[in-house]
Amino acid sequence: MYLKLENQQKTGSFKLRGAFNRMLLLDDGQRAAGVVAASTGNHGAAVACAARTLGVDAHVFVPEHADPSKTGSIELQGASLVKVGSDCIESESAARRFAEQRGATYVSPYNDSEVVAGQGTLGVEFHQQVDHLDAVFIAMGGGGLISGAGGYLTSVFPGIEVVACSPENSAVMHHSLEAGELLDLPSKPTLSDGTAGGVESGSITFDLCRKVVGSSVLVSESEIVESMRILVGGHHQLVEGAAAVALAGFLKQHQRFAGRSVGIVLCGANIAPEVLREVLS
Amino acid sequence: MYLKLENQQKTGSFKLRGAFNRMLLLDDGQRAAGVVAASTGNHGAAVACAARTLGVDAHVFVPEHADPSKTGSIELQGASLVKVGSDCIESESAARRFAEQRGATYVSPYNDSEVVAGQGTLGVEFHQQVDHLDAVFIAMGGGGLISGAGGYLTSVFPGIEVVACSPENSAVMHHSLEAGELLDLPSKPTLSDGTAGGVESGSITFDLCRKVVGSSVLVSESEIVESMRILVGGHHQLVEGAAAVALAGFLKQHQRFAGRSVGIVLCGANIAPEVLREVLS
Repeated sequence: MYLKLENQQKTGSFKLRGAFNRMLLLDDGQRAAGVVAASTGNHGAAVACAARTLGVDAHVFVPEHADPSKTGSIELQGASLVKVGSDCIESESAARRFAEQRGATYVSPYNDSEVVAGQGTLGVEFHQQVDHLDAVFIAMGGGGLISGAGGYLTSVFPGIEVVACSPENSAVMHHSLEAGELLDLPSKPTLSDGTAGGVESGSITFDLCRKVVGSSVLVSESEIVESMRILVGGHHQLVEGAAAVALAGFLKQHQRFAGRSVGIVLCGANIAPEVLREVLS
Repeated sequence: MYLKLENQQKTGSFKLRGAFNRMLLLDDGQRAAGVVAASTGNHGAAVACAARTLGVDAHVFVPEHADPSKTGSIELQGASLVKVGSDCIESESAARRFAEQRGATYVSPYNDSEVVAGQGTLGVEFHQQVDHLDAVFIAMGGGGLISGAGGYLTSVFPGIEVVACSPENSAVMHHSLEAGELLDLPSKPTLSDGTAGGVESGSITFDLCRKVVGSSVLVSESEIVESMRILVGGHHQLVEGAAAVALAGFLKQHQRFAGRSVGIVLCGANIAPEVLREVLS
């Protein structure tokens, strides 16, 4: 069993890969016009970090009442934080309008082929690091990570099973794959805030997931907590809920993979101290 | 500022380096006779892990009432756990007697030149990873890590200042260096359990520390807590108290090092979940 420690990635999550790839592909004029994103979390920090590294101007939109403990790292990276709207949907709409008015590039968290390709570099790295994988467990939200990394891994490890893992409380892509069409479903709160929420209508990741995902498993909140405790207490890895979702998915299926090589992607480490405290109690 | 992530080392601490080096240098007869150690913590897990890897029989002695959450990883590695004595001094005496009777090798946590040399590999690695260091902050307990790693770094970065960091509540080597002789001093409880306690009479690390340590700083328990929060919340690194001692030492001295290259060794990650919970509250 191999744990892919993306919780040790710069900015604390895989999201840097996609944001970086998207921005590396901008031409000089596009770079000069800057980038715009809407995210309170990992994607926002990733866009801010990539922008700083590449010397690109970045505006990151968050809702008015976003938690300063989450948005702090976006500002630390030097991006302009724009607080607008009462929820993520409103701040995203504002971000898109702002980008259009400015001629700036809106960087989507997953609905963009270059972002998906960037997440694919996790698969490239994993392939360099292990001899073989019979299966890989990856948390699925919008589907960018599993499309990119899972897609690459299926091309280099023929027969690999890409197992999508989602929290029961918010599993829009999981249910969409079952239904054969992208659904608009409500979500309940989950420890896996990194994967939570709806999937953008018409997202390119739906067809990619249909192609790449071999099986899909749901996990409960208590299973997520148990996996976080294992990772913190037994493996010294600080992880966020979405990372624990992948381990929890594996623990539900491990008998199927006895004696085989399995990869588990720990996709991020951004957990609020008060949430971590709750998990440990 | 560079953080050397020894909290990501196998077994969760630098101790594996010294234990491994000591055991790699055993001849065939000594390997067949096995090794013995006395430790409830990082050294015990390190000896057990190195022994398993090298196919050597290991007995690790712990006090009768040692916390199972700490000794669990020793048994998981396949070492024989021997519970004897009411405290660490009694279990260490029993371990030494047992080793002598069996003709087995007693592996000291720091009072052994090959263990110190093994810790020195951290310095070798650090040298390969950074262009230059003007100072390095290292937690000091028995003095094995700072002697080995600090000693190597002074040889490759002339003029580097090796700063020893100790908790006020248990700083036997610090006070011994001030006094010019190894003292027998009591210790109060500290979050930095990895560095806590007395230093063995006649330990070779005393003269090594006298040579290597450029300055020595004490930190309070609340400064350790503050540094743990920074590492967990701001850097996504799970660390034990001793690792935070090194950052806390730096934070007390950082103005002296403005604009210079500083290394901070995060020596380990083994923290009990209930202690981490306390630190985060």
